[in-house]
Amino acid sequence: MEPESFFTKNTKVALKHEPPGEWMPPVPDHSIPLNAGYPAHSLIPYEEMNEAVKDLIEEEKDLPFQYLGSKKVNTVKKFVRERLAERGVVLLEKEILVTAGAIQGIDLIARTFIDRDTWIVVESPSYMEGLETFRNYTDHYITVPIDENGMQTEELEKTLKDRKEKNLPMPKLVYTIPSFHNPTGTTMSIDRRRHLLELASEFDFLIIEDDAYGELYFGERPTPIKAMDSGSRVFYIGSFSKTVAPGMRVGYVAARSDLLEPLPWFKKDLGHPFAEATLGSYLSQTDMKKRFEMLRKVYQQNCKTLISSLEKYMGDIATWKNPSGGYFVWVHVPGVDTSKILNEAMQAGVAYVPGKHFFVHEQEGLSYLRLSFSYVSREEMVTAVEKLSQVIKKHIDQ
Amino acid sequence: MEPESFFTKNTKVALKHEPPGEWMPPVPDHSIPLNAGYPAHSLIPYEEMNEAVKDLIEEEKDLPFQYLGSKKVNTVKKFVRERLAERGVVLLEKEILVTAGAIQGIDLIARTFIDRDTWIVVESPSYMEGLETFRNYTDHYITVPIDENGMQTEELEKTLKDRKEKNLPMPKLVYTIPSFHNPTGTTMSIDRRRHLLELASEFDFLIIEDDAYGELYFGERPTPIKAMDSGSRVFYIGSFSKTVAPGMRVGYVAARSDLLEPLPWFKKDLGHPFAEATLGSYLSQTDMKKRFEMLRKVYQQNCKTLISSLEKYMGDIATWKNPSGGYFVWVHVPGVDTSKILNEAMQAGVAYVPGKHFFVHEQEGLSYLRLSFSYVSREEMVTAVEKLSQVIKKHIDQ
Repeated sequence: MEPESFFTKNTKVALKHEPPGEWMPPVPDHSIPLNAGYPAHSLIPYEEMNEAVKDLIEEEKDLPFQYLGSKKVNTVKKFVRERLAERGVVLLEKEILVTAGAIQGIDLIARTFIDRDTWIVVESPSYMEGLETFRNYTDHYITVPIDENGMQTEELEKTLKDRKEKNLPMPKLVYTIPSFHNPTGTTMSIDRRRHLLELASEFDFLIIEDDAYGELYFGERPTPIKAMDSGSRVFYIGSFSKTVAPGMRVGYVAARSDLLEPLPWFKKDLGHPFAEATLGSYLSQTDMKKRFEMLRKVYQQNCKTLISSLEKYMGDIATWKNPSGGYFVWVHVPGVDTSKILNEAMQAGVAYVPGKHFFVHEQEGLSYLRLSFSYVSREEMVTAVEKLSQVIKKHIDQ
Repeated sequence: MEPESFFTKNTKVALKHEPPGEWMPPVPDHSIPLNAGYPAHSLIPYEEMNEAVKDLIEEEKDLPFQYLGSKKVNTVKKFVRERLAERGVVLLEKEILVTAGAIQGIDLIARTFIDRDTWIVVESPSYMEGLETFRNYTDHYITVPIDENGMQTEELEKTLKDRKEKNLPMPKLVYTIPSFHNPTGTTMSIDRRRHLLELASEFDFLIIEDDAYGELYFGERPTPIKAMDSGSRVFYIGSFSKTVAPGMRVGYVAARSDLLEPLPWFKKDLGHPFAEATLGSYLSQTDMKKRFEMLRKVYQQNCKTLISSLEKYMGDIATWKNPSGGYFVWVHVPGVDTSKILNEAMQAGVAYVPGKHFFVHEQEGLSYLRLSFSYVSREEMVTAVEKLSQVIKKHIDQ
């Protein structure tokens, strides 16, 4: 019996790509994980979660453990609606779908809207797990470069006009992370956000706005593209992973209801009552605005430490962009293939994510790497950057 | 902007079917929910879960709330392996995938193995949410009737031979619930289990063995088909929903590793660390064999009560099969369209699931209904059956 003979056409194509998560080999214990895009131990409110569970079970007994029934699940939706309204995104309840993390939202949209011959637009670079997801559905990408003002929508416009003239297939979806972009940390300007919406209307495409880091601004609060979405072409994706706890696996998709409608057809995990109710219980007893403020302060200070370490140890061998929020700094080390020296760096005591995994065309990312300032302590960050600089210098000298 | 113009071909076809969950309208508060296929309040170990969370957080702090890290997630896999080994299914660790409930396992297999032109075999009747899932992928079904010994594999053999002779497309997958079948409660005999495996080898198909109710036997413990699966053609699907708590959303798929391999490519929810670790913590502090025994006793007694109520109130108007395990009794009420009288029954104070939703060809199920003995108290069951009998009698008399 040959398993392959049973696979669908789509599965056979998908399996040609690397297995999910292959972009990061195991990090040795002694390595400082600057690769890790998750919150620090101290920033996960685990004691409060313990309280939240206790109160939840006291109040609702078995309900959170049944298929449905816990009222706390609605608390999550209510929080999302209220918070988004404050950010300029006004939604009806039926315009929100709670998902198992932001990535399930991306996957559901991909399943519902991307045929094997569908073209989509992604930023270059882009979130590696987003790319990994899209690769399951299509191999037809238009890539748009990022600069210090986010996605270069002028480039996108040129490409679209050119394709239209040449009668080439037009894209159906644009995937963007406009605020505190993963991996580059940059933020799309308000003018480009507007421009992107105009293009969506002119060239008839939908937009996935991945705003997982949207609450983590250091200076100005960016306006979501969805807040200006008069044509209702935007899927807004949010998450509690970066601000509460990724292990809860709670995120959401917001879109006009007739675009959102087909997603539950394909969402066959039947919701996650226990996790969602626990989060609901936590949200109802937490001053989330204060928490967001605290997180912003911590991450901003972390970011400063990482940037000053880079200035100190790598000022002569690398360039980077100063993020105005989020988790990441994107570092350019000309002349070095970062995927080739990762093992050596990990042996020397520091891990990062090689740049190539963030690109559809991997070779464009060879001399980049992504560092995270969310997870490790500031002391470790300094040590890690020093170690990294030593490994890189060895290879530049060669 | 026309949303439909953006949908994939597959989405457009899927949307022709009813939305998920439409088979059950909301049950009024005053109605006794004999429709509910979930555990009774008193059978959900919510106080123990509270303890499990407390101990987990005390021991692992933030780990269960991160993307990965909690060792308790492995406890779930270890439990599954050990328990299945006792039931004759010996598995390597890489042959198990933990999923968000059994239904996510079914969905992942469907996504990975079913093209739009793929034929599959389902039992008639079958689990409505299984059918709902398969309908997202294909409309090509071979249905095989169930009798008191489960799926009539002789009928399947005839159909397959006939199709082969006529050069018709052959099925790639057979979906079966061999033990304490949902909705009929029947169990496939050991001879038919063997026969099905022989057919799988002869006609080259795979088998999904949905064993969500496998631990809940009243008499003899059935041998899983997977335990006899020398040709490695079986996906074995299990769940903690019926024995611990459905709201945890933890189930699993077990299969030879090269058949299981593609599933994680499409499983984009990234696991559920908090829920899985909580379950792991619970399993490590619970005598599960004792718990299974307790559940068997309670459900067996519940089942007796339901059957004796049926004898008392509906002996003259209905027939049913005596289940030897599980959650359900399948009732035949000749001459009555059960979907047409559901609202009246709910107004009279009793809810059930109309039979038609369990059939690919709905008209085959019009005079059937599914009652559950898992959720409501024995007193309520008696009352509910009496009320149901009154409603039905009114319609038989007409």
